[in-house]
Amino acid sequence: MKKRVAVIGAGPSGLAQLRAFQSAAAKGAEIPEVVCFEKQANWGGLWNYSWRTGLDQYGEPVHGSMYRYLWSNGPKEGLEFADYSFEEHFGKQIASYPPRAVLFDYIEGRVKKAGVRDWIRFENVVRLVEWDESRKKFTVTVQDLPNDHCYSEEFDHVIVASGHFSTPNVPEFPGFERFNGRIVHAHDFRDAREFAGKDVLLVGTSYSSEDIGSQCWKYGAKSITNTYRSAPMGFKWPDNWEEKPNMKRVDGNTVTFGDGTTKKIDAIILCTGYKHHFPFLPDDLRLKTANRLATADLYKGVVFVNNPALFYLGMQDQWFTFNMFDAQAWWVRDAIMGRLQVPADKAALVADVEDRVAREDAGKDTHDAIQYQGDYVKELIAETDYPSFDVDGACEIFFEWKEHKKKDIMGFRNNCYRSVITGTMAPVHHTPWKDALDDTMESYLQN
Amino acid sequence: MKKRVAVIGAGPSGLAQLRAFQSAAAKGAEIPEVVCFEKQANWGGLWNYSWRTGLDQYGEPVHGSMYRYLWSNGPKEGLEFADYSFEEHFGKQIASYPPRAVLFDYIEGRVKKAGVRDWIRFENVVRLVEWDESRKKFTVTVQDLPNDHCYSEEFDHVIVASGHFSTPNVPEFPGFERFNGRIVHAHDFRDAREFAGKDVLLVGTSYSSEDIGSQCWKYGAKSITNTYRSAPMGFKWPDNWEEKPNMKRVDGNTVTFGDGTTKKIDAIILCTGYKHHFPFLPDDLRLKTANRLATADLYKGVVFVNNPALFYLGMQDQWFTFNMFDAQAWWVRDAIMGRLQVPADKAALVADVEDRVAREDAGKDTHDAIQYQGDYVKELIAETDYPSFDVDGACEIFFEWKEHKKKDIMGFRNNCYRSVITGTMAPVHHTPWKDALDDTMESYLQN
Ligand SMILES: Cc1cc2nc3c(=O)[nH]c(=O)nc-3n(C[C@H](O)[C@H](O)[C@H](O)COP(=O)(O)OP(=O)(O)OC[C@H]3O[C@@H](n4cnc5c(N)ncnc54)[C@H](O)[C@@H]3O)c2cc1C
Ligand SMILES: Cc1cc2nc3c(=O)[nH]c(=O)nc-3n(C[C@H](O)[C@H](O)[C@H](O)COP(=O)(O)OP(=O)(O)OC[C@H]3O[C@@H](n4cnc5c(N)ncnc54)[C@H](O)[C@@H]3O)c2cc1C
Ligand SMILES: NC(=O)c1ccc[n+]([C@@H]2O[C@H](COP(=O)([O-])OP(=O)(O)OC[C@H]3O[C@@H](n4cnc5c(N)ncnc54)[C@H](OP(=O)(O)O)[C@@H]3O)[C@@H](O)[C@H]2O)c1
Ligand SMILES: NC(=O)c1ccc[n+]([C@@H]2O[C@H](COP(=O)([O-])OP(=O)(O)OC[C@H]3O[C@@H](n4cnc5c(N)ncnc54)[C@H](OP(=O)(O)O)[C@@H]3O)[C@@H](O)[C@H]2O)c1
Repeated sequence: MKKRVAVIGAGPSGLAQLRAFQSAAAKGAEIPEVVCFEKQANWGGLWNYSWRTGLDQYGEPVHGSMYRYLWSNGPKEGLEFADYSFEEHFGKQIASYPPRAVLFDYIEGRVKKAGVRDWIRFENVVRLVEWDESRKKFTVTVQDLPNDHCYSEEFDHVIVASGHFSTPNVPEFPGFERFNGRIVHAHDFRDAREFAGKDVLLVGTSYSSEDIGSQCWKYGAKSITNTYRSAPMGFKWPDNWEEKPNMKRVDGNTVTFGDGTTKKIDAIILCTGYKHHFPFLPDDLRLKTANRLATADLYKGVVFVNNPALFYLGMQDQWFTFNMFDAQAWWVRDAIMGRLQVPADKAALVADVEDRVAREDAGKDTHDAIQYQGDYVKELIAETDYPSFDVDGACEIFFEWKEHKKKDIMGFRNNCYRSVITGTMAPVHHTPWKDALDDTMESYLQN
Repeated sequence: MKKRVAVIGAGPSGLAQLRAFQSAAAKGAEIPEVVCFEKQANWGGLWNYSWRTGLDQYGEPVHGSMYRYLWSNGPKEGLEFADYSFEEHFGKQIASYPPRAVLFDYIEGRVKKAGVRDWIRFENVVRLVEWDESRKKFTVTVQDLPNDHCYSEEFDHVIVASGHFSTPNVPEFPGFERFNGRIVHAHDFRDAREFAGKDVLLVGTSYSSEDIGSQCWKYGAKSITNTYRSAPMGFKWPDNWEEKPNMKRVDGNTVTFGDGTTKKIDAIILCTGYKHHFPFLPDDLRLKTANRLATADLYKGVVFVNNPALFYLGMQDQWFTFNMFDAQAWWVRDAIMGRLQVPADKAALVADVEDRVAREDAGKDTHDAIQYQGDYVKELIAETDYPSFDVDGACEIFFEWKEHKKKDIMGFRNNCYRSVITGTMAPVHHTPWKDALDDTMESYLQN
């Protein structure tokens, strides 16, 4: 009998897994039966925008953390699929920081071409996965949402590709229960226009804080304040943006910062990151890790050391995204198909993890971190038939991007880079980012 | 061996169940072992206010649907516990429409006195309940949230008291994905001050629409519009409040109504009700019912006809609340302790449900509906040792309340009623509701 493989999630990681198996089949290999469970009504994961927040039409937590007017925060040349270039998809080279809708279209293009949509059960949410050690089988319990029906099926392998930027990390600060305004986590932020004319406070100093603050600034907020727990971001901010040490407390609409100063604030946006959250996994199968490059308990970054029949995709913190998910998915495919050997000895798996952690910890700065993750992508690609590409070239693009941000935080998206897949230089976008209020695909492709 | 009983939820219904068992024990009866699982860190259910929306600090859906400045929407004389009066709790009679904090204190007072807090495992969320027909046992799988630990235990009975005003019913209207403002369901509404100076649209014509609209009006919204699908509420609204037929679509900030008129709107609040939602119950145990007085599939409104070892509390639409939950909890206790007989024949259970449905359907109006639910409360109380009280008198109070609302929708909370438990008349509150901006217990009790 054919092996059965369950993939949980049809975001970029899960789709990479489907494409990996399909590409083996296209080359004549006999592949397992693959069933992908996706709780949303469409594929694309975080890139599948929804106006909904909190709970969705079925009472399930809304997966989406993306918002209107979101543009890629890194150059697209860092994430291009090696087997499906932007030029192949759009029929031409496009500018380097596409808005969400453009990247969604690109992600979709590859899997449409591969013809894997039938493998996905949409609006089917995985409720529980259990492992039977004696029979070496997983039981996956699923809720079919539109039919309000709960069922279970057996699988030989489970691949968790459910993402980890969806369940918000929501700290509390003294006085929150009496703040006279809106408190919202980045996960539920949707439209910057709502904050036009307002004094907005962002908690945190990472990508969400930087980008949501920039959106609010672009769409007319009166002032932006962001707080830092460790260190300020230190960019050259516009005049109405300031960084303050972590919030001490809130009284009515007045926020008191770590340095004792105060400010009147209309809305608080918690850009405090996300949690690895797997409510469908029991203790023996559940990954517990910090958000870092070398995750806990994953051999080669994908095989769960406590049960090597279980895989995780995309659980690392991310400089590389789509192409790293591909590298992982091709590797997992080959492990499942017996083309690659996972050591039988648990100690060997654990040693691999320890080695990765030590190597990440030895890095000094973001430059080293980018190179570290680039090297990881290279390592995986070398072991499968995923089309090899100039990963070091992609690292160089990330280094340039970092410099561009330092120079001009509201202008870095006006730069362009050369594709490491096709060698073509990206065109300069027709409108500077800060003036481009329309984020539709039609508008972006008018180059 | 002692029977084991699991209670899911420590809101008013679950707490009524604990108090019911404790009161039997206090009278010398041998009671089963009772374990109550509560996902929140405190008891009180919806009455346990949280500033959080969407997902909580553990990534679980926030249960709370209550908001700042919420006052009881019905007279407290309609919900008074027969075994624990307001006068016993506060040491005096208090005014008739207490704010949330006052009712929370009252709910807590009774169970503190009963000493049942130890029966509750807080921050333990039930993930799955399964029934083993051969062994006649339930397996309850629970996530201990602070310890991030998943475990299972066996029970003879499960009582579902998880509420049904927590999972929002969230319809979509054309153009929502491009509305230039906030769209939020009543479940995630927290602070009316946020909408001061705004043109607010409320969808729906029931309690949430009426009360959230009234809050926004009270705290300074520029205008209130509410839409109706069936019929307008028809109260004598203030000048800046209008009712419009159901929304057709949204373009930017412009809403088009069913009559073709349009209006510029800043924020949309969906007051479109809630769902009975039991993500922890498989098909064979899951109640599927409309929000009505005679629910589907519950014998005597509490025994699940497809498995009489399983009970549900408080699943009806609610005129009566706390005292009805008490009536149900005492009845369920006696069924479990063998003091009452549940027919062994499923047809008899189903016939009881059909009869209840037919009797509810025969009612013409809300007057009949209130009397119908009052009669149900009387029916249950007559079969247990719950202190009997003047239920018809409580119905009369509800009829008066309806009249008071018709007369003055922004003033009905200034009325007072006589307790059917102690016979004492409530005092007039020191400040009319529309001028009472402070909703603390300290302020309310200054009578
Ligand atoms: C605000 C934001 C902006 C970002 N911007 C960029 C960017 O500009 N460039 C970039 O490269 N990366 C960006 N990212 C990073 C992002 O993580 C990746 O681009 C990518 O979406 C990760 O893919 P994934 O498949 O691993 O996870 P996801 O995209 O999160 O997809 C996971 C899928 O699993 C499904 N799922 C979850 N639980 C279940 C369940 N129990 N049952 C069934 N299905 C389930 C979800 O519905 C979802 O479709 C951004 C992230 C965020 C939060
Ligand atoms: C906005 C609003 C205002 C209201 N105002 C009034 C009013 O003024 N007067 C009135 O009489 N009634 C009012 N109600 C009605 C309300 O339903 C009842 O007062 C009462 O709270 C119902 O009690 P309950 O215990 O059945 O449910 P809830 O109060 O909802 O309590 C259910 C409990 O179960 C817990 N739970 C849920 N799922 C799980 C799980 N899987 N595992 C563990 N625990 C779980 C929850 O955390 C919660 O504590 C209002 C309701 C709403 C939504
Ligand atoms: N396309 C885009 O433009 C875009 C936009 C937004 C996000 N993203 C992506 O989304 C992902 C997540 O980024 P993120 O910024 O949401 O999360 P993140 O990178 O994990 O950053 C979390 C931030 O919150 C702070 N924080 C956490 N807990 C805190 C607490 N209790 N008190 C104060 N501060 C606290 C952290 O401070 P410390 O530094 O002190 O720990 C850190 O600054 C990234 O992959 C990013 O690329 C992309
Ligand atoms: N203490 C308080 O002051 C207070 C405040 C708020 C709520 N509550 C309580 O909360 C509970 C729930 O009340 P609720 O008002 O939230 O819910 P509800 O009583 O179920 O009312 C739902 C409303 O939404 C409308 N609706 C549903 N789906 C719709 C759709 N697709 N399009 C348009 N309209 C739609 C319904 O219209 P139709 O009539 O056409 O079906 C109805 O008017 C009640 O027990 C109430 O007492 C109390």
